[in-house]
Amino acid sequence: MIIVQKYGGSSVANPDKMKAVAARIAETSKKACVVAVVSAMGDTTDELIALAKQINPMPDGREMDKLLATGEQASSALMALALQAAGNTAVSLTGGQAGIITEKVPSKARIRKIDARRIKQELDSGKIVVVAGFQGITDNVSSADITTLGRGGSDTTAVALAAALNADKCEIYTDVDGVFTADPRVEPDARKLDSISYEEMLELAGQGARVMHSRAVEVGELYGVEILVANSSKQTPGTLIKKEDANMEIRNPVRGIAHDTDIARLTIVGVPDRPGIAYKIFHGLAEANISVDVIVQNVSEAGVTDLSFTVTNADLDKTRHALGPVLKEIGAKDLVTDPNVAKISIVGSGIRSHPGYADRMFGALAEESINILSITTSEIRITCLIDKEKVKQGIRALHKAFELEKV
Amino acid sequence: MIIVQKYGGSSVANPDKMKAVAARIAETSKKACVVAVVSAMGDTTDELIALAKQINPMPDGREMDKLLATGEQASSALMALALQAAGNTAVSLTGGQAGIITEKVPSKARIRKIDARRIKQELDSGKIVVVAGFQGITDNVSSADITTLGRGGSDTTAVALAAALNADKCEIYTDVDGVFTADPRVEPDARKLDSISYEEMLELAGQGARVMHSRAVEVGELYGVEILVANSSKQTPGTLIKKEDANMEIRNPVRGIAHDTDIARLTIVGVPDRPGIAYKIFHGLAEANISVDVIVQNVSEAGVTDLSFTVTNADLDKTRHALGPVLKEIGAKDLVTDPNVAKISIVGSGIRSHPGYADRMFGALAEESINILSITTSEIRITCLIDKEKVKQGIRALHKAFELEKV
Repeated sequence: MIIVQKYGGSSVANPDKMKAVAARIAETSKKACVVAVVSAMGDTTDELIALAKQINPMPDGREMDKLLATGEQASSALMALALQAAGNTAVSLTGGQAGIITEKVPSKARIRKIDARRIKQELDSGKIVVVAGFQGITDNVSSADITTLGRGGSDTTAVALAAALNADKCEIYTDVDGVFTADPRVEPDARKLDSISYEEMLELAGQGARVMHSRAVEVGELYGVEILVANSSKQTPGTLIKKEDANMEIRNPVRGIAHDTDIARLTIVGVPDRPGIAYKIFHGLAEANISVDVIVQNVSEAGVTDLSFTVTNADLDKTRHALGPVLKEIGAKDLVTDPNVAKISIVGSGIRSHPGYADRMFGALAEESINILSITTSEIRITCLIDKEKVKQGIRALHKAFELEKV
Repeated sequence: MIIVQKYGGSSVANPDKMKAVAARIAETSKKACVVAVVSAMGDTTDELIALAKQINPMPDGREMDKLLATGEQASSALMALALQAAGNTAVSLTGGQAGIITEKVPSKARIRKIDARRIKQELDSGKIVVVAGFQGITDNVSSADITTLGRGGSDTTAVALAAALNADKCEIYTDVDGVFTADPRVEPDARKLDSISYEEMLELAGQGARVMHSRAVEVGELYGVEILVANSSKQTPGTLIKKEDANMEIRNPVRGIAHDTDIARLTIVGVPDRPGIAYKIFHGLAEANISVDVIVQNVSEAGVTDLSFTVTNADLDKTRHALGPVLKEIGAKDLVTDPNVAKISIVGSGIRSHPGYADRMFGALAEESINILSITTSEIRITCLIDKEKVKQGIRALHKAFELEKV
């Protein structure tokens, strides 16, 4: 049996935590071959970014990848040392040594293939294998470039390795107990879910639930890897992310409330209502690698319309910068930004087959006098843009309206 | 023209120092292709060692190499970013990316070969190449292991790269002005040497002069690479390490005074005077990778003798441990250690052809009432073991006796 386990940065933030995680890995290794994927210790990645920005405010992607990859390389070596100190045989591998071959795209490289020969050889010789998360290499030669997989990259490393090794389990250990019906810090009645479908998890992640990054879930769905998300410092069962099954039919069609306050709304005022204008605007943003959400275009009046959308706060400056020349070109009147907005969403695969959920959602928000600024929907999600100050009130109202405290 | 420059840890200890070094490299790159080798920032290596020891007091060599190599990987990426911030095109390479292939021996791997294709390709495309010092890889595939080259490893990286690239210059920048006739902190009249032979430099380095590590000098001698040692924060000319030339004939036959206080003397008391005993003792120490110096065996009395030698203070515990079983086996009476000793040496290739230098050295020490505990010599060096407290007094006496303040 092969088990892939991933431990995040807060789980390996200092020597004592490393030793505690090593004990968990060692325990698992009594009954299975273990591949442990580790993130950089604590805030290492942020500290390296800050250091780089002191030296170069606009750092090159390739060099940043090489710099940031050192965080996981160090933590993987330290974890191997912690395992060895406790009497286990263990070996650490960088992403490159583990055979994780990626595209040649800095900061957000996708995995092209995994050459798992070295991992298998180490497992066959009875070792616990510790793999540096978040990183890969552009080719299987030592002169190739080091890449990183972007936000949540260590989760992706773990799920991709589980797929390549045909592992029996893939376990993502983090500092939360699993996936909840809503953020438990906001809604005390929020309930941990025992299982959730890939699709639902993707919608929750895309709407600001920080448990797991979308890419790892996508890889899991693609290769049919069931992913357990659980707390690294407890023995609680966690949440299993898997294919939708028949049992899901008889449960609450709404699975959870997601929210995201880390966004800003931009409104382009006075856009001439001509074909190709929207393409011009959003193509420029896509080129600049800016993710856009909740796009709303008003009904045109006298050949002129307003167009609004949201981006993450981190992307706000970059978005303004990228829009500059486009707005001039199309002759827009003004660009208005509003940082005081939040997204709130209901997610559940049952939404697609049960009509009337939008209605109930809008009603619950109206009852709390929460104004809806924009609406977007997917097959299994309804998202409203609301005032940032009302987001907690909105979460509680929706959690109650859809009876999410009940199984 | 290709110039290889190496900058040590104190020269790149923080962002400001990195930027200053980047300016120097950029200046050089106006007239030549530059390969810059960098050490880890400031005390990074020591901090990583301390962290590892908190997790595992007897850390495995392979994992330590992987951990420590992150220090140079990070500083090389940051130096590339500093060069780019100042408008240069630059790329950083790990030891593996630079094609530095080593033996598979942790912590002190020797370089087997250098595959300089990637460096040449980057230089050909007009880039400044920054190479992470101190490290290599065991093979040219991405699954190979990362190794480190041991103390002074970044110097070795620079000299070996200069040889592989057939570079026109190899410059080692450090925090001293060059090689002096004696430690200038002890002897105010100490004079910087404009040049020194490989052989003399090796004897000085072996006797505690901390300017450059022996291995790099050996590589330089082997491949005929002239090495300039100079101060990274000044524009002073430094000292050139090169082949002995005719001019060296007419200068002072003694080139410098070396000293080393970081040693301890061990005396094995009551050693049976039988063939093979010394081999048993020193073979065990060699196996444990302990360097031994100033070996003295007293005249045998009644078939029993005393044997004494020195090791570095860092190796003292390991030496005691390694000697334990051997002393039992040979039936030695006792092991006495004395940490209050120091080595003091005169070095110069002229010593070999000029008799009477030992005599003058012993006389100068006697005049200061400095007792000589042991003596060893090489062709171009005479070393005395003396009381640690008398070492400064000894340096000054010898500097004066051999008129080293004069060219």
